[in-house]
Amino acid sequence: MSARSLFYKLFAGNHTQQIPVCSRILTRQKFHTSAASGKPATSPSTNINGLSRYRKLSVGVIGAGRIATSVHLRNILQHLRLDLKWIIENDVARQRFARDELMLGDEFPFFTSNDRFKLLDDESLDAVFVLTPVETHTEYACDALQRGKPVFVEKPPGVNYTDVKHGYETAEKFQTPLLTGFMRRFDPAVQATVKAVQQGDIGNIHVISLVTRDSPRPSYEFLSSLAKTGCNIFSDLTPHDIDLMVWLTGAERPESIYLTGHAHDPVMKECGEADTVTALLKYRTGVVASINNVSESKYGYDIRFEVFGSEGMAQMDNPRLSSAKLELSSGFRSPRICTSFPDRFSMAFQNELEHFINCVDGTESPLITKEECLMTTEIIDRGTQSFQEGGVVRFQ
Amino acid sequence: MSARSLFYKLFAGNHTQQIPVCSRILTRQKFHTSAASGKPATSPSTNINGLSRYRKLSVGVIGAGRIATSVHLRNILQHLRLDLKWIIENDVARQRFARDELMLGDEFPFFTSNDRFKLLDDESLDAVFVLTPVETHTEYACDALQRGKPVFVEKPPGVNYTDVKHGYETAEKFQTPLLTGFMRRFDPAVQATVKAVQQGDIGNIHVISLVTRDSPRPSYEFLSSLAKTGCNIFSDLTPHDIDLMVWLTGAERPESIYLTGHAHDPVMKECGEADTVTALLKYRTGVVASINNVSESKYGYDIRFEVFGSEGMAQMDNPRLSSAKLELSSGFRSPRICTSFPDRFSMAFQNELEHFINCVDGTESPLITKEECLMTTEIIDRGTQSFQEGGVVRFQ
Amino acid sequence: MSARSLFYKLFAGNHTQQIPVCSRILTRQKFHTSAASGKPATSPSTNINGLSRYRKLSVGVIGAGRIATSVHLRNILQHLRLDLKWIIENDVARQRFARDELMLGDEFPFFTSNDRFKLLDDESLDAVFVLTPVETHTEYACDALQRGKPVFVEKPPGVNYTDVKHGYETAEKFQTPLLTGFMRRFDPAVQATVKAVQQGDIGNIHVISLVTRDSPRPSYEFLSSLAKTGCNIFSDLTPHDIDLMVWLTGAERPESIYLTGHAHDPVMKECGEADTVTALLKYRTGVVASINNVSESKYGYDIRFEVFGSEGMAQMDNPRLSSAKLELSSGFRSPRICTSFPDRFSMAFQNELEHFINCVDGTESPLITKEECLMTTEIIDRGTQSFQEGGVVRFQ
Amino acid sequence: MSARSLFYKLFAGNHTQQIPVCSRILTRQKFHTSAASGKPATSPSTNINGLSRYRKLSVGVIGAGRIATSVHLRNILQHLRLDLKWIIENDVARQRFARDELMLGDEFPFFTSNDRFKLLDDESLDAVFVLTPVETHTEYACDALQRGKPVFVEKPPGVNYTDVKHGYETAEKFQTPLLTGFMRRFDPAVQATVKAVQQGDIGNIHVISLVTRDSPRPSYEFLSSLAKTGCNIFSDLTPHDIDLMVWLTGAERPESIYLTGHAHDPVMKECGEADTVTALLKYRTGVVASINNVSESKYGYDIRFEVFGSEGMAQMDNPRLSSAKLELSSGFRSPRICTSFPDRFSMAFQNELEHFINCVDGTESPLITKEECLMTTEIIDRGTQSFQEGGVVRFQ
Repeated sequence: MSARSLFYKLFAGNHTQQIPVCSRILTRQKFHTSAASGKPATSPSTNINGLSRYRKLSVGVIGAGRIATSVHLRNILQHLRLDLKWIIENDVARQRFARDELMLGDEFPFFTSNDRFKLLDDESLDAVFVLTPVETHTEYACDALQRGKPVFVEKPPGVNYTDVKHGYETAEKFQTPLLTGFMRRFDPAVQATVKAVQQGDIGNIHVISLVTRDSPRPSYEFLSSLAKTGCNIFSDLTPHDIDLMVWLTGAERPESIYLTGHAHDPVMKECGEADTVTALLKYRTGVVASINNVSESKYGYDIRFEVFGSEGMAQMDNPRLSSAKLELSSGFRSPRICTSFPDRFSMAFQNELEHFINCVDGTESPLITKEECLMTTEIIDRGTQSFQEGGVVRFQ
Repeated sequence: MSARSLFYKLFAGNHTQQIPVCSRILTRQKFHTSAASGKPATSPSTNINGLSRYRKLSVGVIGAGRIATSVHLRNILQHLRLDLKWIIENDVARQRFARDELMLGDEFPFFTSNDRFKLLDDESLDAVFVLTPVETHTEYACDALQRGKPVFVEKPPGVNYTDVKHGYETAEKFQTPLLTGFMRRFDPAVQATVKAVQQGDIGNIHVISLVTRDSPRPSYEFLSSLAKTGCNIFSDLTPHDIDLMVWLTGAERPESIYLTGHAHDPVMKECGEADTVTALLKYRTGVVASINNVSESKYGYDIRFEVFGSEGMAQMDNPRLSSAKLELSSGFRSPRICTSFPDRFSMAFQNELEHFINCVDGTESPLITKEECLMTTEIIDRGTQSFQEGGVVRFQ
Repeated sequence: MSARSLFYKLFAGNHTQQIPVCSRILTRQKFHTSAASGKPATSPSTNINGLSRYRKLSVGVIGAGRIATSVHLRNILQHLRLDLKWIIENDVARQRFARDELMLGDEFPFFTSNDRFKLLDDESLDAVFVLTPVETHTEYACDALQRGKPVFVEKPPGVNYTDVKHGYETAEKFQTPLLTGFMRRFDPAVQATVKAVQQGDIGNIHVISLVTRDSPRPSYEFLSSLAKTGCNIFSDLTPHDIDLMVWLTGAERPESIYLTGHAHDPVMKECGEADTVTALLKYRTGVVASINNVSESKYGYDIRFEVFGSEGMAQMDNPRLSSAKLELSSGFRSPRICTSFPDRFSMAFQNELEHFINCVDGTESPLITKEECLMTTEIIDRGTQSFQEGGVVRFQ
Repeated sequence: MSARSLFYKLFAGNHTQQIPVCSRILTRQKFHTSAASGKPATSPSTNINGLSRYRKLSVGVIGAGRIATSVHLRNILQHLRLDLKWIIENDVARQRFARDELMLGDEFPFFTSNDRFKLLDDESLDAVFVLTPVETHTEYACDALQRGKPVFVEKPPGVNYTDVKHGYETAEKFQTPLLTGFMRRFDPAVQATVKAVQQGDIGNIHVISLVTRDSPRPSYEFLSSLAKTGCNIFSDLTPHDIDLMVWLTGAERPESIYLTGHAHDPVMKECGEADTVTALLKYRTGVVASINNVSESKYGYDIRFEVFGSEGMAQMDNPRLSSAKLELSSGFRSPRICTSFPDRFSMAFQNELEHFINCVDGTESPLITKEECLMTTEIIDRGTQSFQEGGVVRFQ
């Protein structure tokens, strides 16, 4: 069974396959399955699904910024198979923050980037997480890959097409896994929807529609720190949508793209950056795709997509904070959708980590490929060009 | 703010209150909130919400059976504030299973129950989890409570009314928290529903209806190992429903109960134990409550309840494995509900642990009270009596 | 194909069968189907599904009270195959009201009950609707049946078991269709749910749960005009639920019934009549059924039922006023459920009429049978007895 | 209260306002409201809400094609206030088909278009329905308007901008209502959604997204009989979406439009007509709107739209054939969406007729205005131009 097929089983009816969707970490779920009744059915010693088959993995983390501290470092520390050896972080305040927030203790070793060669040379090290600002993604990833250390790198894997290509070529050359962190691919709802499409439930794809509306709005400081393109929302927020579109279309090159947008927020208007954009793409195979992005949604982090095909439609809808319901004389009410990405994609981040561990083990290959990352980068470039020129841009 | 009020905020609209519902562990969510944008908004060093305010807690666990290994021990090991000191488990096979499954390592100390007094006398120990079979719940809990160690005990807190009462009186006498593990109370959907009722959204309660249909069916070995009452499903499975009913009614004593049931499963029929029961209760205040329990539901672990009131209705519905959707010519499809309790209540178990930690810290009091546990026990007894006698049983 | 099988096709995927569910009147839908594109596909003259095959039917109506004027008379007047010949109504004010409200015109003939023999003797008359108060149902129905006129009679078909039996035996003797107006059976959602059960989608039935919560509350005048049983809600409102339960169980005789209830409304309390009742029934085959009824639901007319079986669960949920949706920072909102039965069951009433026409045509037999009506009557009697005695009542 | 405000009350909680959403015809609902309990609460003679206040209206119909026979003529015949005097239809086969299908009887008068002047001169005639092919819409409508007869005309009201303008100017000149049949505006779900937007529930509009996917596919004969533009789907199907967009934006002129599409169906490809198109519009106020149209959806007639605003999102979702639900081990199932427009918009067509009657009575003004119809026509023209030129088209 191919690595990817592991992820396409989520609509199926049998118990073994479905439990993972609801659980947190795939390896653990195998155990949960047998423990499902909560009562002693078989002798513990005969269990062969647990972690007991595995050895612990030693890992290092480069970069302890906010997404690292709030998401990745926590997941690493909580994973029973992972042994976090060190963190590289040049900023002392960030070091202290991470040490305190994660209760790492005084003895936990922090280093700076200059120490990385020595640390990466360590034979006992099994894998590395590159969670630094994007400018250093390619360099640090390659430093590790060249030493045969599997790398997880936050998206995007490089600042431009050349860097992304270089990173993946290095991984190929040293035959070492490089996984880019498009976490949405590991979300159970995304996977179930894509699986339905890939197994042909809706026939041939004719229309794709994706929506990402951020919540809460990132700070103006952050938004104005991005590249000044007039539509930096498209290169910062949209890549997650583009990655899904690229996944669904098998990294096919689009025929054309047209991007339009507007700054409704007065501060954004002053920055000269749109807060609302929609892209319309046409593929040679006839697929028409649209992506709508907004930098602030007041009702929560709104992430949806739908795929219309010759035989049906698949949709990835938003989950809600809970399944509570109210019937009142004024109508029906239920809780809102998630407020932000750490909530919405908490399981996706954990499944992503599990997939990376499987890549380190060699039982799976990275779900996100070089070709896909390069096509995503190319689409971002053409879309930005369309916005700046105000017309339709054709792909070569 | 009272301890309980912490749990009743889940329908509200503001961000700070809502994030917890979607996240995993309450303490962490405070951090998630500030980290929600995933981008550096404030200097890390100014953050005051993180774990940095807290000290680590040393805890011991008595009992390493299946629910301990699959749920509680994992949650304890993954919690950044908890330091698991030892496990008491008399069965060597269970010791080895837990050691392997949880990757505890060779050096991790296991003990047997005879060692408990010495271990509980340890001044540095902050709290104890009693996860043994029900027969020893009261004894072990009291051993710890008498030494001033806060205790989390799996439900039920004792084999009968006398034992439950003794356990709670010991906690009162030694002014030490005793938390019984009715985990459903900590589920976001349950809490949002109960909160809506408690804050008056639906007016006065007139009707309560609860459903618990187990999945997968517990083994016949387990089912036939329970007390032979003819309706042991009512004393094993139903207490979770009764606890919610008792919570909703403020531990009011019912006026009457009638229980009827049937064994559809031929093996259960042979055991003389019903696999399907429904209880109908009437309260002096006019509330009519029904509870339906089934030992095997093929479509998943079906846990719902609804509360009808003078002004509206609140419902706790089942969540689904994901929010994927399919529109086909044959109709609409979406993924099934959770298969079993570790999936359905994974967040509840984690929130329950967080609540217990808050009880140890002294910032909250146990959400489940002595009066509630005693009323639950009383209702189980009267229900069993009704089933055996075949008629309506009045409460004194 | 049996008459009943016509109604069990509503979950199926093919177009021809599904269109009826959404449309108003079955005969018309056949036409709608071919007209679905709204564009001339085939020559009009070749159409064989339309009303053109049929002749008009002459019908008379006995009783022009509120349900007649607001529901049945309208549906009769709007049906393109029906020709309303006369209305018998003794009350002059009601005559005038119906004449005005339905724009019948000055020339439309009203009669009184004394004229009925002459009117029923008319050879050209095809069918009769008996919509009078229940006391005269059996007498008027039999008057028509004895003259070979098919009869639609509002529920219940008689004041007691003897009358119901007599009415149906008269229909049998004169081989003339008698249809009792349990309109819920003709609702698309009810039919789709029952069909799923009857075709085995959920395996064997183990649990049935039905809910009817009226809206708006009937007037106290009406409620206090009913038979004084202490639970007249059970004989007035519940029969619709009982009829569905009887349908689902194949008119099997229950083993026992227990009924409890309460008067929350102070006026009802003074009347000595419960406004909230729940019945719990047990069948010899092991089915456990519960029925909850409330005389006033503030959030709308709440009619639901669920059937749990060995392989799954089927549910008939409430439809909403529309499929509009709102996502706000305070949560999700959608319109309320229907306010009352003429809205909720408007399509059911029309389908019921269509079924009656088919019975007159002889292409279908009445969906509601003598055995079912008698079992419904028997269950009402036993339930009332249980409420009055305060204990479980066994069926002989 | 303005005419339009009547339609914006559908999300509100009070009974009087909500009942219309579920019922069929607004005038009737007033009666239904008082009759809601189905039991005699007030004396019939005191009722002042019924049809009794109104006089019957004499109407004539020009055109008896499929949509006339299947939808409009039926609704007219079933409406208790309308008296259908005659039908003009030049095609004898269509005459016979309508006479048979609608059971009009041998005596019902059919005429040909040459007779129209004489018929329209009839003083007793109250209103006219123009349901002919689009080529004659303007001419026949003006013939009636010039004689002071209110006109309902099927969409579009003319073959081009000039004709549409001429029709509406004639209506203005003769101060006679002209209602164009964009029936979606009268659908309860559409109205509830638009009302939420118009009353400010979601703040300022930022993004509009509309979807129309036809079902079943119109015949190739029909599709190839339309104007050969390469995207005739945009001028035939899309106007319903454009009308809603125009309604939501207050007939504001867009800034630009870009249209792309594809023919997936080999027959359509041969015809040179796209079966899948998406339009992307930008407004000067910053609104970004997209419209996706497909000529064949296998899962049913898929009509949705969503409006994203500064404070929330409103959505008009598809209703389902019924509210039945199935929980199986393979997942959740519910019935499909409607198969075609006569089912999906049956209530909209009836409400549209009711609105037209109110326009004839003078109690309401036509909900669809001249400015809106002209803007819709302009957008169709610019979109077609964009598709043919392959680039973005700016509005003057």
